[in-house]
Amino acid sequence: MESKTHEHEHEHHHHSQTKAVINRISRVTGHMQSVKTMVEEGRDCSDILIQLSAIRSAINNIGRIILQDHIDHCVVDAVESGDKKVLEDLNNAIEKFLK
Amino acid sequence: MESKTHEHEHEHHHHSQTKAVINRISRVTGHMQSVKTMVEEGRDCSDILIQLSAIRSAINNIGRIILQDHIDHCVVDAVESGDKKVLEDLNNAIEKFLK
Repeated sequence: MESKTHEHEHEHHHHSQTKAVINRISRVTGHMQSVKTMVEEGRDCSDILIQLSAIRSAINNIGRIILQDHIDHCVVDAVESGDKKVLEDLNNAIEKFLK
Repeated sequence: MESKTHEHEHEHHHHSQTKAVINRISRVTGHMQSVKTMVEEGRDCSDILIQLSAIRSAINNIGRIILQDHIDHCVVDAVESGDKKVLEDLNNAIEKFLK
């Protein structure tokens, strides 16, 4: 039998969606650059607002994925080990993110 | 007397806040890069969510500035010249941006 508990401790910050989150952040950064170009070129304000709205949706989705990943990994660990701080921090972050 | 009307037509896409908007977009892009680093380094999900929340606020502010600038410049011109399309586009953009 492998030492599952020991292995688990080392995986405290492991998240299965890290690569997906990084890719999405890169895409949002690229999207912001193209909006910057639109502003520089004096493109229609309406078109720029639509792109900013899409970027905001993308950021909301990134937050949702990070939150779900956190719940699936860190929170399960925290509850198992009775770590109250993790849940308090999470609640504060949700309060800020979902307002 | 200068030809005010003519001058006005050429300023159709002039916005007084363009430089400020571009600077804010650059700051948001830099902020996104630092969030990407946080994700790569496995930093606390709560901290990352708080930063994403700040980025979303910054994007909302950029949208607000663009909207106000658009109203102060293009919309006034459009109403004066009876250009309905500009107002329709603006309403569509507001609908998307403020949902």
